[in-house]
Amino acid sequence: MPTEPENAQDPSHPAAAGFGRRGALLAAGAALAAGLGAAADDLARKELTGRHHPTPAAPPAEAAAPFHGPRQAGVTAPQQPATQLLAFDLPQTSAAADRQTLRTVLDALTRTLAAAASDAPSDARLQSLGTTRLTSLVGVGPGLATRLGLDVPAALADLPTFPGDRLDPARSGGDLLLQLCAADRWTLTVVAELVATAAGSAGATPRWSQSGFLPVTTPGTTPRNLFGFKDGTSNPAPAEDEQFVWGPPGAHHDGTVLVYRRIRMDVAGFAGLPADQRERTIGRRQGDGVPLTGTAEHDDPDIYAKNPDGSYVIPANAHVRLTSPRLDGGTRMLRRGYSYDDAPTDRGLLFCAFMRDPAQFTRVQNRLATRDALTPYLQHQASAVAYVLPGCAPGGSLGERLWT
Amino acid sequence: MPTEPENAQDPSHPAAAGFGRRGALLAAGAALAAGLGAAADDLARKELTGRHHPTPAAPPAEAAAPFHGPRQAGVTAPQQPATQLLAFDLPQTSAAADRQTLRTVLDALTRTLAAAASDAPSDARLQSLGTTRLTSLVGVGPGLATRLGLDVPAALADLPTFPGDRLDPARSGGDLLLQLCAADRWTLTVVAELVATAAGSAGATPRWSQSGFLPVTTPGTTPRNLFGFKDGTSNPAPAEDEQFVWGPPGAHHDGTVLVYRRIRMDVAGFAGLPADQRERTIGRRQGDGVPLTGTAEHDDPDIYAKNPDGSYVIPANAHVRLTSPRLDGGTRMLRRGYSYDDAPTDRGLLFCAFMRDPAQFTRVQNRLATRDALTPYLQHQASAVAYVLPGCAPGGSLGERLWT
Repeated sequence: MPTEPENAQDPSHPAAAGFGRRGALLAAGAALAAGLGAAADDLARKELTGRHHPTPAAPPAEAAAPFHGPRQAGVTAPQQPATQLLAFDLPQTSAAADRQTLRTVLDALTRTLAAAASDAPSDARLQSLGTTRLTSLVGVGPGLATRLGLDVPAALADLPTFPGDRLDPARSGGDLLLQLCAADRWTLTVVAELVATAAGSAGATPRWSQSGFLPVTTPGTTPRNLFGFKDGTSNPAPAEDEQFVWGPPGAHHDGTVLVYRRIRMDVAGFAGLPADQRERTIGRRQGDGVPLTGTAEHDDPDIYAKNPDGSYVIPANAHVRLTSPRLDGGTRMLRRGYSYDDAPTDRGLLFCAFMRDPAQFTRVQNRLATRDALTPYLQHQASAVAYVLPGCAPGGSLGERLWT
Repeated sequence: MPTEPENAQDPSHPAAAGFGRRGALLAAGAALAAGLGAAADDLARKELTGRHHPTPAAPPAEAAAPFHGPRQAGVTAPQQPATQLLAFDLPQTSAAADRQTLRTVLDALTRTLAAAASDAPSDARLQSLGTTRLTSLVGVGPGLATRLGLDVPAALADLPTFPGDRLDPARSGGDLLLQLCAADRWTLTVVAELVATAAGSAGATPRWSQSGFLPVTTPGTTPRNLFGFKDGTSNPAPAEDEQFVWGPPGAHHDGTVLVYRRIRMDVAGFAGLPADQRERTIGRRQGDGVPLTGTAEHDDPDIYAKNPDGSYVIPANAHVRLTSPRLDGGTRMLRRGYSYDDAPTDRGLLFCAFMRDPAQFTRVQNRLATRDALTPYLQHQASAVAYVLPGCAPGGSLGERLWT
């Protein structure tokens, strides 16, 4: 049994979310063998049955993350090619009645998500996939927390308005925020329907929904946004998650705060810039993600390095300068962005970042909104903040510690 | 401009680990070369560089299909998880001028698609993928063919209106129809932008665009639609393609006709039926796709088999009966459908089928529209037909044989 029971019981260990390393290696090896045999297998089937067999791509290499555990899997599980965010609102009657509704909704969501992520999902469509590879997270918004007097981190609050914001309320906020991730959009479409049915039956109302995606690339590489640049290089180290991502020891230790921004990007406009100007705008090389002051992608950008003429190598308005952890005492947020494409003129980034204190995002965004060289190519169109609840054990329910 | 002193100590500065990181990259590369797999690479990077590396799924196993050849790759290449359909219109001035515009547009599309599908795409964003695995096809609509007197199959014609059709003209038809397929939506978003730019510069106007997807499953298996049933089981055998899919010997031998229908599905409604009723509606078992009269998925459904009480085993209004090739003298169409999910209440199937003569689709759809037990759960919302052009050699252009 390729598990690491001691680590898995220790929520401060990076493996706590359920990614036994040996398990991952075994799964990768099996997938590799399957991949090598796939073409021969396909050929054999074609010859034997004499029919076209439409052939989707091979399944991904990683093992699925379990639903149950001290922390929800959707925060640190490896990113997958497809995501769907779903927001719901709860009725506003009396605090006592609404607290009961919230309990009922969270129970229903817990059952639905646990079943969908299990090796034996109850839905016939999901059964056909073998494993759904679903990871998910459920969070509560600051408005609901205040209304119902929930035990959430004191730092949980709506974001301020930033210069240039063009937020659509119908795509923003919400009492409950879910993020689903899987290997493909098909799975998410089915699970999103199950989630909507479960939440609706329990009394919640859909508020907005947003799908996103990543390029399928070699595992271990940083995914790219639609500008073609790597996005997420300077995330915290797993050991730093305890300090920057997860709550302090206490009731919120296994929770975190998700900041979501739907950012429309002028993809064609940015692509029309000369290559060197694109790279000076970001502060990294496009091809390999290396900072303009470095030699490897994960070199820290040296925002103080100067050219012989005295100018900064990484320009004063470059994106990596303004987002540099050096300007925030070394604090890092865990960015897990996805691209979206809702129409030929509506493409961009679903910025999703996890942090202990959303004030960190506010500091960075205040710098970006006024000085970032990328700003002419970006428009923030939606925003949400949520306290991502601690996980739960089998038989338990998400949100067990919300009630003071 | 940062106000921190230039010698500010950065607690996360990894200078001491710099050499180790390069060593880690070398070690990771060696591990990859030794075939130990991507997870080992990822693990090595995580442990030695101390940074989160978001990890999308592994790349698919099959080799990419080349763009150039006698036939366009998008017709019979293995289906991939992501598709995008794009329709364009051409100006209507004089036949001579419009023919020149069409030539210019087809030249531009050929260059753009060939470059995007090559091992060395010119776009910096696509370069980062290594290979895009793009497959594509370009077709011309019946209206354009008539207007410009193009040499297309005589059978190319708009479809008639079927009972129950609720077609949106803004999502239907078009002078030019493209289908792009790739391993992920990210690639398609980038390529669709390149295509739109190229077509627009040459004089075409975007008409509609539609994205779709398949579940990522084991290669060689038939993909499922959002009802959870396998879709495409009874496609022609590759040897039958010459008879049913590709044109007869002559000018159109390397072309085919694409019939596209955007079919909204009442996914939740159908899922709410009892399992046996779902299977009698389709005529196949949901889990394995086996016809109700058979023991293996690829058994031909026996539409004449009866129960002891005299009723048909496959009911009279079952979907597989009404689509049975036995009712069309054995003729089969090559179905390559994709699911779509444009909103929680707008999900369904992008029916895409290739055939020599679109009258075949008309015959089948006339049966389905009036008698299919699935009809209450379906609504046809868009429609298009296109002559999929023969392929072209390197240096050539799609549509070389359109000019009579």
